Amino acid sequence: MADAERKLNNGKSRIDFQTDPSKYRHWKLTVDGDVATLLMDVDEKGTLFEGYELKLNSYDLGVDIELADAIERLRFEHPQVKVILLRSGKPRVFCAGANIRMLAGASHAHKVNFCKFTNETRNGIEDASEVSGLFTICVINGTAAGGGYELALAADHIMLIDDGSSAVSLPELPLLAVLPGTGGLTRVTDKRKVRRDRADVFCTTEEGIKGKRAVDWRLVDEVVPASKLEEAVAKRAGEFAAKSRRPPGTKGIALRPLARERSADGVEYGTVSVELRAAALASDASGQRGHSQVRAPDTREDGSSARARLATITLRGPQAAPPASAEAMVEQGAEFWPLKLARELDDAILDIRANEFDVAAIVFKSSGDPAQVLAYDQFLDANKDHWLAREIRGFWKRALKRIDLTSRSLVALVEPGSCFAGTLAELVFASDRSYMLIGKRDGDNKPPATLALAAVNFGAYPMSNGLSRLASRFLADPTDLDRAKAAAGETLDAEAAERLGLVTFALDDIDWEDEIRVFLEERASFSADGLTGLEANLRFGGPETMESKIFARLTAWQNWIFQRPNAVGEEGALKRYGTGQKPAFDTRRV
Amino acid sequence: MADAERKLNNGKSRIDFQTDPSKYRHWKLTVDGDVATLLMDVDEKGTLFEGYELKLNSYDLGVDIELADAIERLRFEHPQVKVILLRSGKPRVFCAGANIRMLAGASHAHKVNFCKFTNETRNGIEDASEVSGLFTICVINGTAAGGGYELALAADHIMLIDDGSSAVSLPELPLLAVLPGTGGLTRVTDKRKVRRDRADVFCTTEEGIKGKRAVDWRLVDEVVPASKLEEAVAKRAGEFAAKSRRPPGTKGIALRPLARERSADGVEYGTVSVELRAAALASDASGQRGHSQVRAPDTREDGSSARARLATITLRGPQAAPPASAEAMVEQGAEFWPLKLARELDDAILDIRANEFDVAAIVFKSSGDPAQVLAYDQFLDANKDHWLAREIRGFWKRALKRIDLTSRSLVALVEPGSCFAGTLAELVFASDRSYMLIGKRDGDNKPPATLALAAVNFGAYPMSNGLSRLASRFLADPTDLDRAKAAAGETLDAEAAERLGLVTFALDDIDWEDEIRVFLEERASFSADGLTGLEANLRFGGPETMESKIFARLTAWQNWIFQRPNAVGEEGALKRYGTGQKPAFDTRRV
Repeated sequence: MADAERKLNNGKSRIDFQTDPSKYRHWKLTVDGDVATLLMDVDEKGTLFEGYELKLNSYDLGVDIELADAIERLRFEHPQVKVILLRSGKPRVFCAGANIRMLAGASHAHKVNFCKFTNETRNGIEDASEVSGLFTICVINGTAAGGGYELALAADHIMLIDDGSSAVSLPELPLLAVLPGTGGLTRVTDKRKVRRDRADVFCTTEEGIKGKRAVDWRLVDEVVPASKLEEAVAKRAGEFAAKSRRPPGTKGIALRPLARERSADGVEYGTVSVELRAAALASDASGQRGHSQVRAPDTREDGSSARARLATITLRGPQAAPPASAEAMVEQGAEFWPLKLARELDDAILDIRANEFDVAAIVFKSSGDPAQVLAYDQFLDANKDHWLAREIRGFWKRALKRIDLTSRSLVALVEPGSCFAGTLAELVFASDRSYMLIGKRDGDNKPPATLALAAVNFGAYPMSNGLSRLASRFLADPTDLDRAKAAAGETLDAEAAERLGLVTFALDDIDWEDEIRVFLEERASFSADGLTGLEANLRFGGPETMESKIFARLTAWQNWIFQRPNAVGEEGALKRYGTGQKPAFDTRRV
Repeated sequence: MADAERKLNNGKSRIDFQTDPSKYRHWKLTVDGDVATLLMDVDEKGTLFEGYELKLNSYDLGVDIELADAIERLRFEHPQVKVILLRSGKPRVFCAGANIRMLAGASHAHKVNFCKFTNETRNGIEDASEVSGLFTICVINGTAAGGGYELALAADHIMLIDDGSSAVSLPELPLLAVLPGTGGLTRVTDKRKVRRDRADVFCTTEEGIKGKRAVDWRLVDEVVPASKLEEAVAKRAGEFAAKSRRPPGTKGIALRPLARERSADGVEYGTVSVELRAAALASDASGQRGHSQVRAPDTREDGSSARARLATITLRGPQAAPPASAEAMVEQGAEFWPLKLARELDDAILDIRANEFDVAAIVFKSSGDPAQVLAYDQFLDANKDHWLAREIRGFWKRALKRIDLTSRSLVALVEPGSCFAGTLAELVFASDRSYMLIGKRDGDNKPPATLALAAVNFGAYPMSNGLSRLASRFLADPTDLDRAKAAAGETLDAEAAERLGLVTFALDDIDWEDEIRVFLEERASFSADGLTGLEANLRFGGPETMESKIFARLTAWQNWIFQRPNAVGEEGALKRYGTGQKPAFDTRRV
């Protein structure tokens, strides 16, 4: 369930990442020609959880789910929009950041996952600019504090009204003893490139910085007198629109609601199945395997008992050949197989992350015709300059990045009848480990497992470190990458895939069941936190980017601080905020 | 004092980082021509703290202090040595890594600082290879587990005996629910470039990997049969020695013990003073300044009360002009001013880090003649190909990096009579903030504060992100760096320094006292952990290197795990290790 310590509002039992503008409570999306306005006007009562109010345009995960949805819709439903104006619907406040009472009452797991999703949403705003030429201008009329300024930092251009009081600030440290953890510190140093000593002053000045100094210190791009604001905004919007290559006068496609059917053991989508089960049979818990055996149900801090589970996500290949033309793809819209699969997969991952904390590992399987999967990749390659093809590839890129950053062990099982080819092969390379079955199974008439590479595996889907998954995999020897490239288009059996270094282990049918079972049981028996840290390190070899710095350096420090008594203890700043009592800090530096 | 939860051995009250080979209990250093052997033979009883034994060549901070000392001595005292053979003096075990009972009983602060120092020592081994051509060959005869293998990973070449049982392993996760936190994960992916899925298998396989697979997976460089080991080691040593440019037949200088005089309020070295005092007067704690006031003494977890303190480190410039020649520099040896100052400064920083957890901020001051400081920099520039000049610059580089990574707020006060020029100006740029006094003080005849840049500020001392401190400072606009370069050699007054962006604030005498006092009091009132996280992010804008990844990504995750109940709780893996009871884990993934 979503959160042990807090109740979801309206009797809900799960956090749902699906929404649409008709359901928004916090944002107003209006489109006027090539300019969209995204107005933040948070409904105080419209909280995700019980127990707090969203005053002063502060936000919780529910507010951010709507924002993320709005950005996606602008990309797919409004391809003619070139500029987003990010504005506040409240007087004298742009946004007060993440709601403090929400944070104070949230479990550690929710805090961490909340920050992860909001980070992904802000990265998505930057991605829309970089990939689609959908630029964001943030217009700050009032105060942009903490997460409010961090939201502004995701924009291409920040305008601050010059009225003697409007200011930007990152007051997290002085006010709450935590970090501006939604990319704020990293964007200040690496995107805005604010001098480090000025950044230090800024991040320790509760009231923030306004006017000319905000420009001089590179915190905003310009300050504008109130009387000239609308004129200046229109001018900037025009300038950014002129730089955009988004297709004028194009009609978008509708991102229709996903069809989902949930049961006790999983979820069924159109092209994706999620099956949840215990990581080990009860009888396996009796202790046959020394250190690595699965332990009896553990007692948690909150007294409940729990057992690690597995989520098996099966991806189904296309039922038909790709459409004949780009126009036919637009016609299919959200039903177009690559888009439908990406949306369903993304929703499944978000659902597990936010609602299924006991899932220790995600097992990826697939079924279908690899040749058809490759045909769709070729279709998207052939139409790569079409706006919709570009957006679909972009969606896959972001969905795969989200998987890289999912703190669950990721395992790919490449079995007879599977279709891990091209785009779908990325799931094998995103996994911490992969197993591939050699030959057929006894009494099974499915074709032997194959793996196939395509052009798409060599650059279309960079990880947050800027490298393709295969380049990250073959850091040691670039000729390994060349060999893989040379094999693109070939149907690789298990032994060939293992030889090329594309899978971890190729196994006979005789060993398969036992090996996989033992591995998954063992995995589920390890410390959940230890695995999170291990995977966060091993998945990202090689270079770092601003994005990977946000998820590694900044997030890891914030997670640490979210465990420290100075922030979350009974006398800590988060607990005491607003009580009139000052926090009591342990002054020792670690 | 050193550690609230544990007593130092032999009645000591502080951890001391000064040692020499005559005092070593755990290492035997022998030099034979251009090859040195560093034999690890840990004395089980020779622990730093009470309450555990160092079995199986496991180590604590005391063991690592000796190792760090030995590496420095090889650089300065034995400049003719080209190759270090890192070996074990125990049968069938190379090194079992950090001692688990030590870790289990250590405070969080000690664990974090222990890992930081051991990381710096391993980086130092790599630095000796890169900068001085002093190569390390690690000869593993037996098991190299956890920190034992992490030590091997710092070497240029890893040899593993092929006897059917000798193996390398990183069993931290399966055994202890923590990470291989001394660079292990990062060196596996970024230095050895082990494929990520193989790294996953390796790091979850308690017994490790041996023989041919260890070579195939790039975990070691070669396996050698026992019968041919000595022959193979000699051959490799010869090969590496042939690549080294260390000066044959050169006599080194003696790193004599530092003269230190400790009082209740600080330490006096020859060229460095450390003064400790409360961060605010008691009367200031009554609450004049709203949110930011210094709080009354806080109660700690362990019931003791504490008040944040400040450490003021004053660096004294040279008393005399540089020597006339490189030979005269060698003659001065450890008394040569730049080396003496660097060693004393490094010791002062280590002492504060390990023993003075209540120090919230380190304030750097200096006194002396800036022209003399620059003269020494010019002397070292002129002799930059001399082995000793190179080693001294290298020592400064490492000492400055250690300061960058010190989790205390760093402040430079540039006052009349100070000598922040060239190398010493790096302390201003290493600081989170700097203040510079404009003009003279009333009734003070000291010359006005100046700042002076030299060639050394533009590349000789890279930070762990690979950039000079000035390049890190001026990420936004490279012309700022050019302007600073153009001003090299000039005597800059406070206004000029501020204009060039070299200091945070230039202040009049009228404002100085109040501004600084208020700032330092405010700083000491913030959450210690929040500041640690803030500074760890703001200090390292721009690119990342393997080294910075170790300190950011890996260390931050490990610090988080060191707070989690699965590792350190009463039922956690660290506490239960060796008790016969299995740890009980919360299975929820965060």
